Amino acid sequence: MRHLIAGKEVVKTGMTEEIGRARAAVERARQGARVVLISSGDAGVYGMAGLVFQILQEIGWKRAEPPALRLIPGITALSSTASLVGAPLGHDFCAISLSDLLTPWPVIARRIEAAAAADFVIGLYNPASGRRQRQIVEAQRIVRQHRDGATPVALVKSAYRKLQHIELSDLDHFLEFEIGMLTTVLVGSTTTFVFEGYMVTPRGYSNKYTWDGAAIAGQTPGRSLVVDGALGAAAEGEE
Amino acid sequence: MRHLIAGKEVVKTGMTEEIGRARAAVERARQGARVVLISSGDAGVYGMAGLVFQILQEIGWKRAEPPALRLIPGITALSSTASLVGAPLGHDFCAISLSDLLTPWPVIARRIEAAAAADFVIGLYNPASGRRQRQIVEAQRIVRQHRDGATPVALVKSAYRKLQHIELSDLDHFLEFEIGMLTTVLVGSTTTFVFEGYMVTPRGYSNKYTWDGAAIAGQTPGRSLVVDGALGAAAEGEE
Repeated sequence: MRHLIAGKEVVKTGMTEEIGRARAAVERARQGARVVLISSGDAGVYGMAGLVFQILQEIGWKRAEPPALRLIPGITALSSTASLVGAPLGHDFCAISLSDLLTPWPVIARRIEAAAAADFVIGLYNPASGRRQRQIVEAQRIVRQHRDGATPVALVKSAYRKLQHIELSDLDHFLEFEIGMLTTVLVGSTTTFVFEGYMVTPRGYSNKYTWDGAAIAGQTPGRSLVVDGALGAAAEGEE
Repeated sequence: MRHLIAGKEVVKTGMTEEIGRARAAVERARQGARVVLISSGDAGVYGMAGLVFQILQEIGWKRAEPPALRLIPGITALSSTASLVGAPLGHDFCAISLSDLLTPWPVIARRIEAAAAADFVIGLYNPASGRRQRQIVEAQRIVRQHRDGATPVALVKSAYRKLQHIELSDLDHFLEFEIGMLTTVLVGSTTTFVFEGYMVTPRGYSNKYTWDGAAIAGQTPGRSLVVDGALGAAAEGEE
């Protein structure tokens, strides 16, 4: 965004100084400046948006008062990462940050366990740092209890940036690669497969259709999927 | 995107005809045409990207052969919806489609249960249609077993489009509003709160810092969060 900030006042602070950065943005906006607070990816996803609301709450801001707010959505690290390795997010997925700097580790571990057991594709943010290396090892151990060792795992560092690096591995082997602060880890579900070097999680069309687009015998387009000749509980009686 | 497609061949098919649309795109690309296959939101998230790979697999395509592929990430319905109601995706979240047209209902129900129990913010895609009304009722029942009735719930229809409509409600009352094919439902976690009409899921800064940015006694910036005087299992011994 260098061309967008040329000639403008830029306030930078480091990691762990997010509160000061959010406060500086709010203060300048209250003084009448037009302020943009930038996060990589989507500012609403592990970004600065939530913190701004907490600062506004702390100073007693009311919605009718200045500064006016506008939230601009962005492309998440999950989406950009996924687009570089295929279509791994084609079905239900979750995002979990492995950073325990602000969240107790037991809360994080419980989410990994639940996501693994319920067969979500799992996107891991902040998987490791120079100091923090054990969480990704523990995450691998938890997921491996529920999924095959050959489950596809993608590692993408610095998606769409200068030092972009992509590795396609699997659940038993991905820890052999370098994983750091700028890596996003995508762990496939039980239906995720690798095809010609792409990682794909199917939406489920083959449960219902042939690849000519015709419904399989016993299935009806636009109606609930019939499994073993029966409808699921929530579908029963609806037609 | 009207201005982008002016003067170009446009192939449209209806709902449940996704396979035919993907096949048409692949066929034209194999014949040498430059083809763009469009999905709303991110084509990789419940979109057409996965289906293209399945069609390519079915016809025996190899990566070194034409057509060359490029996947372009987009802003998901989750992100666009979130940006209209505040910062509800500020911490771990998941996406679940309630459509049982291609996925057995028991698989979907198990994911709702797991996500609710492990305290994810939950984004529900395809919550209902003219014919499909029971799934969102069942989803509400499952989540309510794990979360307070006052948990914030946002309903956003047609985000950033002409008929955009936003409702901020809660877990006990959101079913009183219209929910259809174009609605995305965001269910808060136990930490999600409403402030001045905005829905916010905090990242956890207040676990560690005062709003002046100073670390609370016993906490260290850049180090694992200390809970009740102890570190979580994965954090122990790392320093």
